Amino acid sequence: MAKRNAFYAQSGGVTAVINATACGLIETARRHRDEINTVFAGNNGILGALHEELIDTSQESQSTVAALRYTPAGAFGSARYKLKGLQENRAEYKRLLEVFEAHDIAYFFYNGGGDSQDTAHKVSQLGVTLGYPITCIGIPKTVDNDLPGTDSCPGFGSVAKYVAVSTREAGLDVASMAKTSTKVFVLEVMGRHAGWIAAASGLARELPGEPPHIILLPEIAFDRERFLGAVEQSVREHGYCVVVTSEGTRNADGSFLSDQGGKDAFGHTQLGGVAPVLARLINDQLGYKYHYAIADYLQRAARHIASRTDVEQAYAVGQAAVELALAGKNAVMPTIVRLSDDPYRWQVGEARLADVANVERTLPAEYITEDGLHITPECERYLRPLIAGEDYPPYENGLPRYARLRRFIVDKKLPPFEAQ
Amino acid sequence: MAKRNAFYAQSGGVTAVINATACGLIETARRHRDEINTVFAGNNGILGALHEELIDTSQESQSTVAALRYTPAGAFGSARYKLKGLQENRAEYKRLLEVFEAHDIAYFFYNGGGDSQDTAHKVSQLGVTLGYPITCIGIPKTVDNDLPGTDSCPGFGSVAKYVAVSTREAGLDVASMAKTSTKVFVLEVMGRHAGWIAAASGLARELPGEPPHIILLPEIAFDRERFLGAVEQSVREHGYCVVVTSEGTRNADGSFLSDQGGKDAFGHTQLGGVAPVLARLINDQLGYKYHYAIADYLQRAARHIASRTDVEQAYAVGQAAVELALAGKNAVMPTIVRLSDDPYRWQVGEARLADVANVERTLPAEYITEDGLHITPECERYLRPLIAGEDYPPYENGLPRYARLRRFIVDKKLPPFEAQ
Repeated sequence: MAKRNAFYAQSGGVTAVINATACGLIETARRHRDEINTVFAGNNGILGALHEELIDTSQESQSTVAALRYTPAGAFGSARYKLKGLQENRAEYKRLLEVFEAHDIAYFFYNGGGDSQDTAHKVSQLGVTLGYPITCIGIPKTVDNDLPGTDSCPGFGSVAKYVAVSTREAGLDVASMAKTSTKVFVLEVMGRHAGWIAAASGLARELPGEPPHIILLPEIAFDRERFLGAVEQSVREHGYCVVVTSEGTRNADGSFLSDQGGKDAFGHTQLGGVAPVLARLINDQLGYKYHYAIADYLQRAARHIASRTDVEQAYAVGQAAVELALAGKNAVMPTIVRLSDDPYRWQVGEARLADVANVERTLPAEYITEDGLHITPECERYLRPLIAGEDYPPYENGLPRYARLRRFIVDKKLPPFEAQ
Repeated sequence: MAKRNAFYAQSGGVTAVINATACGLIETARRHRDEINTVFAGNNGILGALHEELIDTSQESQSTVAALRYTPAGAFGSARYKLKGLQENRAEYKRLLEVFEAHDIAYFFYNGGGDSQDTAHKVSQLGVTLGYPITCIGIPKTVDNDLPGTDSCPGFGSVAKYVAVSTREAGLDVASMAKTSTKVFVLEVMGRHAGWIAAASGLARELPGEPPHIILLPEIAFDRERFLGAVEQSVREHGYCVVVTSEGTRNADGSFLSDQGGKDAFGHTQLGGVAPVLARLINDQLGYKYHYAIADYLQRAARHIASRTDVEQAYAVGQAAVELALAGKNAVMPTIVRLSDDPYRWQVGEARLADVANVERTLPAEYITEDGLHITPECERYLRPLIAGEDYPPYENGLPRYARLRRFIVDKKLPPFEAQ
């Protein structure tokens, strides 16, 4: 087989471990130099392919590539950029293939969520149609844990661990001050359509009565009276209440709680933040002193408290992507297959891109308690192994020492791309 | 000397390391069983003394006490409760002394911020007046780092490390997505009157142009045009902008930025959160897509990323408190004395409570850059050693295993206390 090049791109919201996937992919490709010449990474994801900005990863030292394993966020830049449908914008797909051809790229690795798997799938199909067949491998990545066909998604375990640890720690804080200070603490976490991240906070509870006392999920319509009743009961029984809410908590009519239509001092519609909405509701209806935190990017960037399981799986899918490609597979995605819960054992499997593209996996009903306000033991059994193990980055001067890349961009061979 | 008992109370907002101080104090007292009989801890701080709810720490095993070293928040409960002045409410001070006398308490250790040092000082004075002389030792604790007389305050180093690490991590996240997504990220941290915590975010920057690009401090009046200009310049030069703001950022007239007088959907005055105010201002004036995080209690409870220096100093002041008391000192507070910056060397000193009570130490002018939007190398030199070293708690099932106390409360000997 002639030596050909590979293209790798990071897509969508970044995670604490997407670079561990890049590390697995690049290190594995380097072990197959007889088959893969150079791995080019897209500068800012798929935009790097469209605009022919290809980062030559062979310019990065072995130690820099190794450091990607413990470096959060997207080292090559990621992009929130969804290619349009083939009918609407065939030109973008065609351009991708032109760039791939110009740089002798035979392998396309796309590291992202559902949208990205869809894109990878389309590129694979169109390659055949346009006479430039290319091996397309999707690689799972999402903190939202909402990809089907895989037991878990690399990126989720680490944000889950961050949220569970933070809930336990902040819970101790609130408990120790509740007598004279804050009675209700609300932590807002990510998850617009699926409640996996909020659910993970439930792992912080070891004994009955421990935080979190209430978990709000997008899967369950917000019931104002039930919620307020549960808050009041928790304060009465335990002296305080810790609430963890998904950003996507919704009313029965499907509208987001965070979209309250209030106006700020500038007369603008109040944007974002379900935590302050809940906190004010509690204060208004029950009169309790409250505090709230919005973890936002801190949660998905928190490599310092990454799950070792997650790091290992993120690396493994990067490695498997190359191995699948070299084994002649196409339009597939490596997956995590769970073999047993306790002891937790897993292996890498594969799914067809056609089956995972654009499908969202939400929390199953049996993972949510009857009252809709907490997780079941079954859910804990599923989640527990995903946050297991620590994998600390190296520190220097009190701070994690993360990889610094050269990001050397190769010479362009094509005219600029004009978006349609 | 006859064996007498000691009383220890945690006061005000808790920290990631105040229990390390409790650990140092109790372990040291246990090594002096010939002089100190039992250490009683106040259940919920000073309220435990007023209401005669004394936790018998001798009921806690050696390993539980040792675990306090790595357990965040206030294991015995803390209280936001400021005793009134001697003129207004002599009854409270009198009650304290009655409880101390009933339980043969000769040593009063009060672990808190400026208010607590003031209380400890008053108790010491009144004890003499009322004929029940008691040894009063204040022990420094505050994430705000605003106590005078000590080079740093136990609790600060860990929140500083959390904020610096989080800024570095979230900064990488924003950088990697800025091309197509969020351009400006605002992180709100604690510090209502002093900007030490926000200043610590500046340690995340290693090379010019790295986050944070702007730091807002309560010490510097917010200048809208200058701020917007700096945001715009950062986005132009680096493609994005990371802002870290103290919760106490103020306008030139002294009003808090977070107090914008806006109304929410319930018609209530909009409460708290300087981050959303800044984010909306940026969006309104510059049109950039933004995100914001509010770390709130997460930052001060984050024992998982505590500074080893901070943990060691927190333990040391607990130990020193007992040693000072047994050396016959009274109305003093152990302090941290810096001997050199690099290599960082420190020792425990002491200050008179009269000198530290009710004095706030803010960021000196020479720690803030000319434009008021960042910290100087001198400030970095001061802060750097305080976040040095890691001190991870033990983990079990993916989560930190923190101490669980029995909190055994001894029998009461006095009638209930009726607040005046």
